[in-house]
Amino acid sequence: MARRLKGVLAPVVTPFDADLKPSAERLITHCKWLVSQNAGLAVFGTNSEANSLSVAERMTLMSQLVEAGVDASLMMPGTGCCALTDTVELTKHAVKLGCSGVLMLPPFFYKNLSDDGLYRAFSETIQRVGSDKLRLYLYHIPPIAQVPITPGVIERLLKAYPGTVAGIKDSSGDWNNTDMLLKNFQSESFDVFCGSEVFLLQTLRGGGAGAITATCNVNPAMIHDLYAHWQDADADDRQAKVTTVRRTFEMLPLISAMKAVIAWKRNDPQWSEVRPPLMSVPKEKLEPLREKLDEIGYQMNL
Amino acid sequence: MARRLKGVLAPVVTPFDADLKPSAERLITHCKWLVSQNAGLAVFGTNSEANSLSVAERMTLMSQLVEAGVDASLMMPGTGCCALTDTVELTKHAVKLGCSGVLMLPPFFYKNLSDDGLYRAFSETIQRVGSDKLRLYLYHIPPIAQVPITPGVIERLLKAYPGTVAGIKDSSGDWNNTDMLLKNFQSESFDVFCGSEVFLLQTLRGGGAGAITATCNVNPAMIHDLYAHWQDADADDRQAKVTTVRRTFEMLPLISAMKAVIAWKRNDPQWSEVRPPLMSVPKEKLEPLREKLDEIGYQMNL
Repeated sequence: MARRLKGVLAPVVTPFDADLKPSAERLITHCKWLVSQNAGLAVFGTNSEANSLSVAERMTLMSQLVEAGVDASLMMPGTGCCALTDTVELTKHAVKLGCSGVLMLPPFFYKNLSDDGLYRAFSETIQRVGSDKLRLYLYHIPPIAQVPITPGVIERLLKAYPGTVAGIKDSSGDWNNTDMLLKNFQSESFDVFCGSEVFLLQTLRGGGAGAITATCNVNPAMIHDLYAHWQDADADDRQAKVTTVRRTFEMLPLISAMKAVIAWKRNDPQWSEVRPPLMSVPKEKLEPLREKLDEIGYQMNL
Repeated sequence: MARRLKGVLAPVVTPFDADLKPSAERLITHCKWLVSQNAGLAVFGTNSEANSLSVAERMTLMSQLVEAGVDASLMMPGTGCCALTDTVELTKHAVKLGCSGVLMLPPFFYKNLSDDGLYRAFSETIQRVGSDKLRLYLYHIPPIAQVPITPGVIERLLKAYPGTVAGIKDSSGDWNNTDMLLKNFQSESFDVFCGSEVFLLQTLRGGGAGAITATCNVNPAMIHDLYAHWQDADADDRQAKVTTVRRTFEMLPLISAMKAVIAWKRNDPQWSEVRPPLMSVPKEKLEPLREKLDEIGYQMNL
């Protein structure tokens, strides 16, 4: 049964085995733990190395999660690819499995797209998926995709597909942009999520829906507590503590750092693996991160 | 039978039918015509909208071309994807079909890659393909991929995989970079191709192998004549004429402009179709291009 996704979601990191194949077993365990910490599951996001997986690999993993009893209604898988046919196939699969939403990158190979071209890409996808169950969350991440989703395109999509176009994740890293989205687009049927918990309190104060954020993979309880208590007197203190953990992880490349810490906490070195073109954190670089995490009293709550 | 690819190759534009499915029949006709004009076939390049096609669509089209009698030894298909597994699958297919090379984009989703990460991506691919028939041409196109292939990575790859790493296409648009590549890397077993015929004469004078260039789709004879006569007294005049045709096509977005001109010359409006996120050229914008092409005496030689 689908639900309206709110709160804090993790772009779930994808574990690999020694041959670089996705490790379904580890992923299932991690997802179940995240759910136990009140996190939603934005599987196959940027931090999941989603675009380093084939469409078939992603579809298989999605099915394996659901078969293992992970609640599809808590899932917002990333389904945006460069190829229209890939995006449609992945999105159809997510809708069929009962996912409450999909998080869709724009096609990101060609740059300097016209608004017409970008609108056409999303519109054609929605029509080909052809399901009133689809809830599409736009994924705005210009620092990586290098293809921004403009206000003009959001406006046209909302006019053509109200209800279906259900929100946006803003990973611009620019609060002014999130603020603009909140003021112009946040509504009962269009939710704005910030792309880093650093902006969570500001986002909630601006009427936004929550955060879809990397470090939710390793710090879900603390971030969810901030979400649950954002109107309490100590909210700013909570935000400051959450931000400190985030900044500490940012000492190293984030995806590799989070996987290394999960490997450490789970005592499972295989968790450190990343697919090329990423690289694992070398041991000597991990030590300062571990020391700093211990210093700030970080706990993963496994 | 594989051969050493030299000269002028077209990143063959991919025609679509009314439902946006690839049109194999039109592609076969276009490829056979290109071969008749002495052009090699860099199918599935940037101008082919390759990344707007699924892996399965690309593999099927490659097989259909070969089955239709298009000479695989004239082919250098693009096989570089974001996902290692996709790149390996496409590359294996190309090698199996007897293609004389593959043109490989770096994984282009993550930006600011380390040399270690980029090297690992190519190295892992080569090892997984595991064929001494593989001839890998690196595809350097920072304006679009936003992931440059650095001299450091080329050097490491050449040391580890001499013979297999067989060359580079430089689509930086920066002659200084092509010049650097020619001076540092061009050899009997590593060929430098420029990414636009505008640089063809300079590339050949610098010892390079030729050009892999968009407008070869619509002007192959003239570009090949320049290649064949680059040491003649009138080479600079030839280059100037070739460049004029290129600049004329650049009045409009290149992929859509070339497809519109093929549609016009073949009297087949369906040829104008592009997949999202690209847009076809609207009729009123095509007219000035057609007039200018007539003015400069452009002929497609169908």
